[in-house]
Amino acid sequence: MISKNIEEKFRLITDYWKPGIVAELNGQLVKLAKLKGAFVWHSHAHEDELFYVHKGTLYMEFRDKTEVVHPGEIIVVPKGVEHNPYTRDDEEVWVMLFEPAATLHTGEVTHEKTDNNQQWI
Amino acid sequence: MISKNIEEKFRLITDYWKPGIVAELNGQLVKLAKLKGAFVWHSHAHEDELFYVHKGTLYMEFRDKTEVVHPGEIIVVPKGVEHNPYTRDDEEVWVMLFEPAATLHTGEVTHEKTDNNQQWI
Repeated sequence: MISKNIEEKFRLITDYWKPGIVAELNGQLVKLAKLKGAFVWHSHAHEDELFYVHKGTLYMEFRDKTEVVHPGEIIVVPKGVEHNPYTRDDEEVWVMLFEPAATLHTGEVTHEKTDNNQQWI
Repeated sequence: MISKNIEEKFRLITDYWKPGIVAELNGQLVKLAKLKGAFVWHSHAHEDELFYVHKGTLYMEFRDKTEVVHPGEIIVVPKGVEHNPYTRDDEEVWVMLFEPAATLHTGEVTHEKTDNNQQWI
């Protein structure tokens, strides 16, 4: 029941695209991640995934369009939907994620950025 | 997959202690609420509940202590733990909640503030 400061937790993250876990509840995890550049196309067959943008502008590319997500905005990527998050102009983007604990980082795709050994911060 | 601006959604809330739903994923709801004054002692037998403070200072009273939760901080209230959120000095506090869709507003307590007919905003 200890409260945790998100900004302080973000400062502990040193690697892009490597989420750190800050809370667990009802089988779901709350994670923080710093994003920069391009990630990888993937989907999660059984898990919806929420992104809350804390800082910077997130581009969420889908097969038919790209959503621009500004600070203070949330976007939910439904299960099974292919998506490819990226940032532009070398900007560092900070996001908070809500997703089931079982969610694999890059779904069924394996990539050099894949990290399924995510740690608490 | 439309992104939603949290500040804009907060502006649609007119009543204190009446959460509005902004997202659903994996059987969980994301809600926004404006809080002012005292709520009511209650617990949720089967649901953990997360509070993210967007604006103002939230006081989360437990039977053995009170946690002070500042803007940008999160607190998770585990299932079964009695809690009583309140604000001080007539301050309006804006929070984002993350909890299972089945969560009752005031648990098994019924109170004049109880609102189990929460709407999307």
